[in-house]
Amino acid sequence: MTETGTPPTAGTTTAATSTAGVPRLVPTSAELRTVTTALLQEARARSSSGTVSLGLVPTMGGLHEGHAALARTARRADDVVVASIFVNPLQFGEQADLERYPRTLDADLRLLGECGVDVVFAPSLEEMYPGGEPLVRVSAGTMGEVLEGASRPGHFDGVLTVVAKLLNLARPSTAAEYRAYFGRKDAQQLALIRRMVFDLDVPVGIEGVPTVRDQDGLALSSRNRFLGAEERRSALVLPRVLHDLHAQALRGEPLDLGAARERISAADGVDLDYLDVVDPLSFSMHGNSAHGDREHSNGASGSAGHGEGMSGPERSLAVVAARVGAVRLIDNIDLPTHR
Amino acid sequence: MTETGTPPTAGTTTAATSTAGVPRLVPTSAELRTVTTALLQEARARSSSGTVSLGLVPTMGGLHEGHAALARTARRADDVVVASIFVNPLQFGEQADLERYPRTLDADLRLLGECGVDVVFAPSLEEMYPGGEPLVRVSAGTMGEVLEGASRPGHFDGVLTVVAKLLNLARPSTAAEYRAYFGRKDAQQLALIRRMVFDLDVPVGIEGVPTVRDQDGLALSSRNRFLGAEERRSALVLPRVLHDLHAQALRGEPLDLGAARERISAADGVDLDYLDVVDPLSFSMHGNSAHGDREHSNGASGSAGHGEGMSGPERSLAVVAARVGAVRLIDNIDLPTHR
Repeated sequence: MTETGTPPTAGTTTAATSTAGVPRLVPTSAELRTVTTALLQEARARSSSGTVSLGLVPTMGGLHEGHAALARTARRADDVVVASIFVNPLQFGEQADLERYPRTLDADLRLLGECGVDVVFAPSLEEMYPGGEPLVRVSAGTMGEVLEGASRPGHFDGVLTVVAKLLNLARPSTAAEYRAYFGRKDAQQLALIRRMVFDLDVPVGIEGVPTVRDQDGLALSSRNRFLGAEERRSALVLPRVLHDLHAQALRGEPLDLGAARERISAADGVDLDYLDVVDPLSFSMHGNSAHGDREHSNGASGSAGHGEGMSGPERSLAVVAARVGAVRLIDNIDLPTHR
Repeated sequence: MTETGTPPTAGTTTAATSTAGVPRLVPTSAELRTVTTALLQEARARSSSGTVSLGLVPTMGGLHEGHAALARTARRADDVVVASIFVNPLQFGEQADLERYPRTLDADLRLLGECGVDVVFAPSLEEMYPGGEPLVRVSAGTMGEVLEGASRPGHFDGVLTVVAKLLNLARPSTAAEYRAYFGRKDAQQLALIRRMVFDLDVPVGIEGVPTVRDQDGLALSSRNRFLGAEERRSALVLPRVLHDLHAQALRGEPLDLGAARERISAADGVDLDYLDVVDPLSFSMHGNSAHGDREHSNGASGSAGHGEGMSGPERSLAVVAARVGAVRLIDNIDLPTHR
């Protein structure tokens, strides 16, 4: 923890500064620390204010333009940008799902390079979990048991555990602002990461980046590549239903979630898991029949989001998950509120 | 995260430097950050190597010479020493136990001052848990379910959650070594904190400080004050049994844990909870009948401590817990191994 900017001595480039377009690939946390410390020092020397920042973009690879949006947002905001690529076994329930998760390192590095990422941390399983599966973990609690958590038991504990590790491993070792970027498409994940940072006082700012969609409206996902042409057409019911709910809310009409659910279930090959309206911070339910009917059906997490720093204007989020063929898709949309 | 040494503007002393013998009392994490950043800057200016360190001594108050040993150890090792005093409700199972936990702030501050502590962080409940009880927590897992964890369900989750918070809140915001000090008397707690730091890559060094005992051999504890004179005499069976097991192990004799348990249970007013021999890192059992009979009865945590950085020479720890009157006491002793 006392490295004070010794230039890195190993690696594929000779200086700590990355060549434009070619991120420096580092496989170990020790090298990550050395390289980012040097890059922050260089940034500090260039900075007129003396204030520098590091941005972390955690990914599991299989990158698409959604990830690129995270990296570009970080590039605009931060002096040093680190992306991580690590397929985290802890967050996969089914071995098959883990095994077929796309691994496309060369393409990922090119994309991250185009986005101006400085450093790519791509640790091995042994580097991340040298003692095997961790015994001590982060637990998502009741907020991690609803919706995605109900369908994927243990998923969010695995997510939060690896995110806690990555946030610790990439943290600046010298005075610097520190931010991490996550997509709003994974809305419950984002809410839980914010809650973890709040509950455990993790010294990092969490930035949510808007969902990127294809021209037809489908939210980008590394899983979309597994959709056949017909399935892809069917999947469009998800963004369309969300869009129509948004329009209803905008007109101040009550939301008919029942009809919306039937519309999804009626689409060819689409098996609805859930469609609900939730508080975007606590993921407690906002009642099922009508927008604005705040029944808070999830009493266990009813107090979530009411803490200082976690409260905000009352907002609503429509969230959906469905299986299209063999592919599980999620999406969400912010709903305007009238108050 | 970008404070760069602005002198504190609020508080009871006018300069960031503490007056010798009088630690600076700070109630908020923001002030803690400001004060420690200034103290680390001063230390850096004095340092010939440019390397500085911060030591954290987390406590729940009710301080005794055992805590003083932690603070003195930190004082010898670190440039800036912070002690925290926070009675953490998360780790108490029974409300009554929480309510009667001793609160002796004035005496605590005097003792910490004598030990040369610079800063005492004494947050309110609201400061530590502004959103009420945390939803996202650290989970101790299987290692937290045996021995103390079996007798106090949820205890170690509460301990690890608040320790994770304190480690984050007190961390240096500029380049500095960072260490935290815990007593070896709470051996399972120490093992779990080490495991948390290892599993979650928390950037801190954990230092275990030897147990301090009264002249009669009883391990110091804030609970000892609740022992009557007779109970205190009875309680001495615990260190005596541990001492005799240590002597047996030293002579290479098999340990007769059954006889040792009977001896404890036979003492007046002593209700044995457990006496076992465990691996001090994983807290997996070393078999019950004889020292060196490694049955690893706790298969679930059998892989603990085998990771890089968590392994070490094979060691054994005899651990005991008993209720003496209304007071629950724990103690332990390292056993020599012959291999």
